[in-house]
Amino acid sequence: MEKPVIIAVIGGSEISPQAAALAEEVGQEIARRGAVLVCGGLGGVMEAACKGAVEAGGLTIGILPGDRREANPYVKIPIVSGVGYARNAAVVKSAQAVIAIDGSYGTLTEIGYALQSGIPVIGLGTWEIALEGKADKNIIRAKNAKDAVDKAMELAGKR
Amino acid sequence: MEKPVIIAVIGGSEISPQAAALAEEVGQEIARRGAVLVCGGLGGVMEAACKGAVEAGGLTIGILPGDRREANPYVKIPIVSGVGYARNAAVVKSAQAVIAIDGSYGTLTEIGYALQSGIPVIGLGTWEIALEGKADKNIIRAKNAKDAVDKAMELAGKR
Amino acid sequence: MEKPVIIAVIGGSEISPQAAALAEEVGQEIARRGAVLVCGGLGGVMEAACKGAVEAGGLTIGILPGDRREANPYVKIPIVSGVGYARNAAVVKSAQAVIAIDGSYGTLTEIGYALQSGIPVIGLGTWEIALEGKADKNIIRAKNAKDAVDKAMELAGKR
Amino acid sequence: MEKPVIIAVIGGSEISPQAAALAEEVGQEIARRGAVLVCGGLGGVMEAACKGAVEAGGLTIGILPGDRREANPYVKIPIVSGVGYARNAAVVKSAQAVIAIDGSYGTLTEIGYALQSGIPVIGLGTWEIALEGKADKNIIRAKNAKDAVDKAMELAGKR
Repeated sequence: MEKPVIIAVIGGSEISPQAAALAEEVGQEIARRGAVLVCGGLGGVMEAACKGAVEAGGLTIGILPGDRREANPYVKIPIVSGVGYARNAAVVKSAQAVIAIDGSYGTLTEIGYALQSGIPVIGLGTWEIALEGKADKNIIRAKNAKDAVDKAMELAGKR
Repeated sequence: MEKPVIIAVIGGSEISPQAAALAEEVGQEIARRGAVLVCGGLGGVMEAACKGAVEAGGLTIGILPGDRREANPYVKIPIVSGVGYARNAAVVKSAQAVIAIDGSYGTLTEIGYALQSGIPVIGLGTWEIALEGKADKNIIRAKNAKDAVDKAMELAGKR
Repeated sequence: MEKPVIIAVIGGSEISPQAAALAEEVGQEIARRGAVLVCGGLGGVMEAACKGAVEAGGLTIGILPGDRREANPYVKIPIVSGVGYARNAAVVKSAQAVIAIDGSYGTLTEIGYALQSGIPVIGLGTWEIALEGKADKNIIRAKNAKDAVDKAMELAGKR
Repeated sequence: MEKPVIIAVIGGSEISPQAAALAEEVGQEIARRGAVLVCGGLGGVMEAACKGAVEAGGLTIGILPGDRREANPYVKIPIVSGVGYARNAAVVKSAQAVIAIDGSYGTLTEIGYALQSGIPVIGLGTWEIALEGKADKNIIRAKNAKDAVDKAMELAGKR
């Protein structure tokens, strides 16, 4: 049985219209390549990305902190984690690559879990992190939505 | 956007050939009704139910305790919970109805979480529970695979 | 460094005065033996057991589903699990033996996790469980509070 | 019943001798002030901080990802989270203030969870984070171990 590639899109639930447009385009690109989109299932980046994926005929999975009624309207399969925001680990660990757009503190936890697990993280205007004045280079920077999804698909294929 | 009904199938990872045949039939019946099957993603009841669902063209989701490589071969979408066997709560809370076949102690935790959350549990040869000598009647007993899925679909529709 | 024995007390948050009196006595007996009491930190059995332990000068730890303000007034060290009722696994896995008093569906999940992990469960008027008409004998029945704590301390010492 | 202040110490499990010395001093300072030290229970920063706290007669709690045998020898009360590295949320949410020393990707998730929950984070040579070129100022920088614990105790008192 063939399994689809799974790409996570992470980002805050309160975002600018520009970040929303970017997330929607990322969702469309993921669906066009036949990949499944997984996210935290709520608003903001998560909703815009799901909207884009659904418009392009894709499958969307939202791993929710609490109740299934929290899911944004573009989540096809709501997964009720039962573990609150500890579900942030599940969002990224369920994916073969992660695209981070903008960023809240929850996004920071997701980036941490992904990098800890060796799952590639592609950044679009997201957190920059540094230790003792030395920038961490493990977040791969992308130029635009298409570039981010190209990089995610390529890196996902290696896992 | 229309959302599919989601039915969980729970049961132990070490089971008799009879329980496996029953689980496979339950998986087939779920897929024939257009519902999505969610389970814990491992062997035994979980694998047999996924096999049945895939044979009948259905979608299978496995919420795994650890790594995606643990998934049985019939899991289409592996969700990596990141929380070990605390994922038992997620398996049942993600469903609108639960079918319990046979039973290990993990199945007992899943029955407890489902009943605590008010999610209907249909039993096929699974745990019986009693408090102070009084049998708990909240596990709905089914006669066979078809009867179990009929009951699950009917109760799921009410949620 | 010597480590104290840790005993979990589990049971529902809505209980009869008799169950509360029993839980309080269990808490006292645990503290008298110098053991630490761990529980889910809320009301009912959890509160009564913590009250008893504190009266006898013992240390009480409550592993909470949500916020630290949820803790009953007799919890000395509140642990905020961050994972909701998935914390039920933590309550029993943190103990070397478990005493179950009365029972809700949450208690059933805790019994399931303890038995799955090989942690001894001593029952005082709690759930009875059976599979295919055969009663499960792994819950050790106690006559009274003192007997329950005697059995818990003896079994905890073997782990 | 008076409850002790709880301070979390977070940081990587593989660290330099300098970071270990700093963590040990932080643990001593926490214990001298009568506060309880909570941490992830493993090696590196966690072990050095527990060692310091135990030397100064303090109470140490380790919230472990897996088994109680993983605990470093200076953990007095091992809490078995049952949820793997999703326990990172529990480590910081159980504290009234957090001291971050050095840093691994796990530490980054803990910083994210603390800031998301409004729990003060005091940094000693730990992660710096920035969004769109703008440094996040919510991690409070300390000069040395004593300064870090002074700041942690003061901020913890306000919660």
